[in-house]
Amino acid sequence: MLSIEKYQKAFGAYLKEFSTPKEPNNLYQPIQYILELGGKRLRPVLTLMATDIFDERYEKSLDAALAVEVFHNFSLIHDDIMDDAPLRRGHKTVHEKWDINTGILSGDAMLILAYQLFENYEGDTFKALAKIFSKTALEVCEGQQYDIDFETRNDVTIPEYIKMIEYKTAVLVGAAMKMGAIVANASIEDQNKIYDFGKNLGIAFQLQDDYLDAYGNPESFGKQVGGDIIENKKTYLFLKALELSDTYQSQELLRLYNNDNLDIEDKIIRTKQIFDSTGASRATKQIIEAYTEKAFRLLDTISISSEKKAPLKQFGIELMNRNV
Amino acid sequence: MLSIEKYQKAFGAYLKEFSTPKEPNNLYQPIQYILELGGKRLRPVLTLMATDIFDERYEKSLDAALAVEVFHNFSLIHDDIMDDAPLRRGHKTVHEKWDINTGILSGDAMLILAYQLFENYEGDTFKALAKIFSKTALEVCEGQQYDIDFETRNDVTIPEYIKMIEYKTAVLVGAAMKMGAIVANASIEDQNKIYDFGKNLGIAFQLQDDYLDAYGNPESFGKQVGGDIIENKKTYLFLKALELSDTYQSQELLRLYNNDNLDIEDKIIRTKQIFDSTGASRATKQIIEAYTEKAFRLLDTISISSEKKAPLKQFGIELMNRNV
Repeated sequence: MLSIEKYQKAFGAYLKEFSTPKEPNNLYQPIQYILELGGKRLRPVLTLMATDIFDERYEKSLDAALAVEVFHNFSLIHDDIMDDAPLRRGHKTVHEKWDINTGILSGDAMLILAYQLFENYEGDTFKALAKIFSKTALEVCEGQQYDIDFETRNDVTIPEYIKMIEYKTAVLVGAAMKMGAIVANASIEDQNKIYDFGKNLGIAFQLQDDYLDAYGNPESFGKQVGGDIIENKKTYLFLKALELSDTYQSQELLRLYNNDNLDIEDKIIRTKQIFDSTGASRATKQIIEAYTEKAFRLLDTISISSEKKAPLKQFGIELMNRNV
Repeated sequence: MLSIEKYQKAFGAYLKEFSTPKEPNNLYQPIQYILELGGKRLRPVLTLMATDIFDERYEKSLDAALAVEVFHNFSLIHDDIMDDAPLRRGHKTVHEKWDINTGILSGDAMLILAYQLFENYEGDTFKALAKIFSKTALEVCEGQQYDIDFETRNDVTIPEYIKMIEYKTAVLVGAAMKMGAIVANASIEDQNKIYDFGKNLGIAFQLQDDYLDAYGNPESFGKQVGGDIIENKKTYLFLKALELSDTYQSQELLRLYNNDNLDIEDKIIRTKQIFDSTGASRATKQIIEAYTEKAFRLLDTISISSEKKAPLKQFGIELMNRNV
């Protein structure tokens, strides 16, 4: 993704400056640790790009971009505790490297630090940024709660699932872009359009994540293909397969998901057969396509030149063409 | 404390309105639960009083007061997880009634909700409130970290201890008052003075808490007198006793604190004898007095009439005259 390297570099340098040792060490060291674990920094890059396309110097939104990234990493620390996850980007999670209390407290501090990053903006911009940030942060919490609730529910509907991934993942993508537009003083209408562009792209991205978890290339996927199936996750593929299945298929699918004694490879193959035979895999590809197209249509309506929008469109296309 | 009843009532009604059921229920119910556990609501009352004495309708700071209370209860939920505390105000703590994950996530949502409560104020007021709030919230996290660090350290100094209680407890009292002054459009100078008044009163209050834990009236104290001694807490009394002790006294005190097999009543009596014979108990009373007087001197310098300040002074006096 050559098109975003410029932003990634600028953001990386800014993040490094932010992430210096502070006292008390036991509070700030875990923050530095998770921020330096890396990642593609897609959210903050989108903030910078949004500022850029609305004809403002993208450096002006570095603080807002950093707030997005710090918040995202706060949510990773707390989610990893809740999910009891040992690894994050190939390294120990914060609560594994230190302990749960450290994860809780350092996470809390990061949420506050994110708000502090808006303080370099003047009153009205500060308020606009903090407002979309709070709304989004609360939705992310709600999305995480729905995700937890869904684990023990057997009647999750597809609209509920879409709402969950919208809250848990997609709204932050939309907010990251809106914040870039706010810093650039874009019109409210354009702010909302770029938010919706980001949100729809975010939903498409998350659905694609679900799809690739089952159908990704094992050589380049980075984690075990079929991980969601092994963990009996109620993904879009699963819910859609249930919806489209006949009695035999749905009984077979539920049996595969409710039996922990199956051979794992066998379970993955047979589950994917049902995803295919019910048409769920095709339907998933179609809905990914639909959300992606909706996002691009929204981008088209934003009142700036096509030239200006090109890098963002390019980025979206590259994002949705990944097959790893 | 008749003087604060008016504010308590107004705040109670406002809190009740805020604390309504929302979806997802598993996220918002614990928030409602902890907010309705009660308490004296001293912090938000101080916000309302501060607005009142600077000649503004105290109702204008109800949102800021609520933010302070919501934040305070967020910190209680997360601290109770870290301290593994089963009870809070005589009821189950959130992580006991639900689970740790619920405590983490509902707490996170409360921190965000606190920021959202500033959104009814216009840009510059919003920013001023959010700024002192973030600074304070971060200090509260740092204070909690110092408190955790001190548990395993044997070289905690008295200035370090004072800084810890300042951050963990006192700055929020100062900030609660400053926020009331901000809403009332008080001068920056007066905002800072009332912050310092609150902070010093907060330090005095916390030191008095330490003192009463050992010397309070068992009939009215509400919890076991000597609780800090039983738990080997390095309070001001303990640190001062070590500082003032001769070799024999310090060896005896450390022996009492490092031996878990002692009879509890015996341990409390003998520890208090050392607090008395070293002069630590007298020194603690003196420093409480010193911080209280410093607070009142600061109040005297605020540029409003003595009449206006009287209720606040009265409140401070009542607070520091409690012996339970």
